[in-house]
Amino acid sequence: MFKVPENETHLTALAESLPTSVPFIGPEAQERSTGIPFKARLGANESVFGPSPKAVRAMRMAVKDAWMYGDPENYDLRIALAKHHIVDPSEIVVGAGIDGLLDSLVRLTVTNGTPVVTSLGAYPTFNYHVTGCGGITHAVKYTADFEDPKLLIAKAREVGAKLIYISNPNNPMGTWHSGATIQQMIESIPRNCLLVLDEAYIELAPNGTASKMDTHDARVIRLRTFSKGYGMAGARVGYAIGHKALISGFNRVRNHFGVSLISQAGALEALADQDWLLDVHDKVESARQRLYQIAEDNKLKAISSATNFVAIDCGQDGNFTNKVLNALIKMGIFVRMPLVEPQDRCVRISCGTPKNMALVAKALPKALASASGQVLL
Amino acid sequence: MFKVPENETHLTALAESLPTSVPFIGPEAQERSTGIPFKARLGANESVFGPSPKAVRAMRMAVKDAWMYGDPENYDLRIALAKHHIVDPSEIVVGAGIDGLLDSLVRLTVTNGTPVVTSLGAYPTFNYHVTGCGGITHAVKYTADFEDPKLLIAKAREVGAKLIYISNPNNPMGTWHSGATIQQMIESIPRNCLLVLDEAYIELAPNGTASKMDTHDARVIRLRTFSKGYGMAGARVGYAIGHKALISGFNRVRNHFGVSLISQAGALEALADQDWLLDVHDKVESARQRLYQIAEDNKLKAISSATNFVAIDCGQDGNFTNKVLNALIKMGIFVRMPLVEPQDRCVRISCGTPKNMALVAKALPKALASASGQVLL
Repeated sequence: MFKVPENETHLTALAESLPTSVPFIGPEAQERSTGIPFKARLGANESVFGPSPKAVRAMRMAVKDAWMYGDPENYDLRIALAKHHIVDPSEIVVGAGIDGLLDSLVRLTVTNGTPVVTSLGAYPTFNYHVTGCGGITHAVKYTADFEDPKLLIAKAREVGAKLIYISNPNNPMGTWHSGATIQQMIESIPRNCLLVLDEAYIELAPNGTASKMDTHDARVIRLRTFSKGYGMAGARVGYAIGHKALISGFNRVRNHFGVSLISQAGALEALADQDWLLDVHDKVESARQRLYQIAEDNKLKAISSATNFVAIDCGQDGNFTNKVLNALIKMGIFVRMPLVEPQDRCVRISCGTPKNMALVAKALPKALASASGQVLL
Repeated sequence: MFKVPENETHLTALAESLPTSVPFIGPEAQERSTGIPFKARLGANESVFGPSPKAVRAMRMAVKDAWMYGDPENYDLRIALAKHHIVDPSEIVVGAGIDGLLDSLVRLTVTNGTPVVTSLGAYPTFNYHVTGCGGITHAVKYTADFEDPKLLIAKAREVGAKLIYISNPNNPMGTWHSGATIQQMIESIPRNCLLVLDEAYIELAPNGTASKMDTHDARVIRLRTFSKGYGMAGARVGYAIGHKALISGFNRVRNHFGVSLISQAGALEALADQDWLLDVHDKVESARQRLYQIAEDNKLKAISSATNFVAIDCGQDGNFTNKVLNALIKMGIFVRMPLVEPQDRCVRISCGTPKNMALVAKALPKALASASGQVLL
């Protein structure tokens, strides 16, 4: 019997060229390898405070309807989002998280050789999708732990970029620009270039961090999510807001039936419960203060954060931070760290419950001592 | 203030060229336009019998965990699927339904100008993704309401196709080939061509419909879903089984965190409850027999089906069937019909509860009379 040889994978030349590494390893894989479940899950900036009880109830109720496909137009959710943001429903597209939306957006705008600009060490899933479509990623450095609008714009001009990616507030450092600064960035964007403004953490940021939403401005697309402040990471719901000409383009490539019916029902109720979101904001602020204090107690500097995580500067290089990180993981605390210099001097810890934070307070001095070679864990 | 003109959408030339039409309009959109909810939802081959109560319970339980991202490796589910199918976990990839898997598969294998082969009137979402990647779809006709392996293979040879799509059992006609026939097809596939075997309805088909699963054979990839027999369309879980070299390729382009945590938990329990699946199989068989009888009662021919729907030949052309379909919709019964000749002489009705089937029995004679101009609805 004829069989195609084992090395015949049918892949395109582009697909063959793609790295086999993935943007993130899940904590479950680490748990499987150690055989020990984490005591605190503080590495993926999930919201330990969970979704609104109303969203929880809506999802439980919706389970009985899971035999039906979800509405491919995500109509009810888009209408509610449009009302919430005072835009037209045609200016909103709902997708399976920001990751799913980035996938579609990059498919729509990037092809072989298309230059795009991002920051070194910013969200790797953006780069993943760009590379997956054959685009060329140019990365500028952070300036003092901030993504730098001026450097991004200058690089975009230099390389003729089609897209500029920026997150505000920033991941993985937690820093943020004012909405006014972002608006200035939008005003200076080169012609034929689109600003991809990832606002995953915006609900947790101080007032004034969001720039004024003008959906007549085709130079920017905003990405939002129910994964962070709304506490529904596992449900996979995000949305993009932008000019209707671009937003309608998503219908040409997106997976129309891709958002779970249960998740749509949950997101609708989560959005309606803004009181819960405010409460989460307060809890996150308390946890941020606690993390700042923990850093200080250990004579370390914490980076001020507008997100549900804090990057703590371990005061040495990435090699040292990596030891701190591994020690924390060994003690049952799932955390992550930035991947590039000089941000990799920091360990990134998500905001958790008081109990979670107490575990961190107890473990961090040991992890630092272990990384310094003073004690063996 | 400089603004990009309204016609500037930032799309690639390929994206600009894509049709704005979408594969399917959801029943919700029809309900919104008429203002009347459907009494019976029998147009999308969802399983009105729902998922296993164990899966329902698991999803309700998992809602409390929805603040966490789902395992990006879908590990537990892949392990269970591997055990169920007696293959290695590395030979299985889980995705957001067959639609999501087709998206990744086409991304991996199709680029500008890549020829692929399918059947005229077969699953449009395959074509949607192929067109979305710049591929060229060549379609052969059905033979007597069957997708025709010989025609597909001959066309693939003629055009040098990279992919051949076939569904077994077939949608939208419900016809099926034996596993032996599919195996013959695999044996005759041209070199460097991959058979995309969509087995969405396989759990509802007679024994012997599935071809022998040989994951060392790189010439075929099988697509399965929890949307049909398992009754979880709204949860978005499908999987592909194939040669590990191809399966591992999915990791280069897929949305790693794309499957809902709630859905993963549900699918795991649904798979474990094979008794429920057998029970659904029986209920579907009863409904099929009822639909055959309804056709006969109306002096129409039903196409024998191995799926959870029956195509009823309305005995005239597509124009007439379209009138029947619209009359049924007007009477509150959501159904669909094949889109091309000569299959468009049929209306496609999903298997439902006895109550659903009674509604169809009552409505179909009226719909036929209305389509014939004998009565006004």
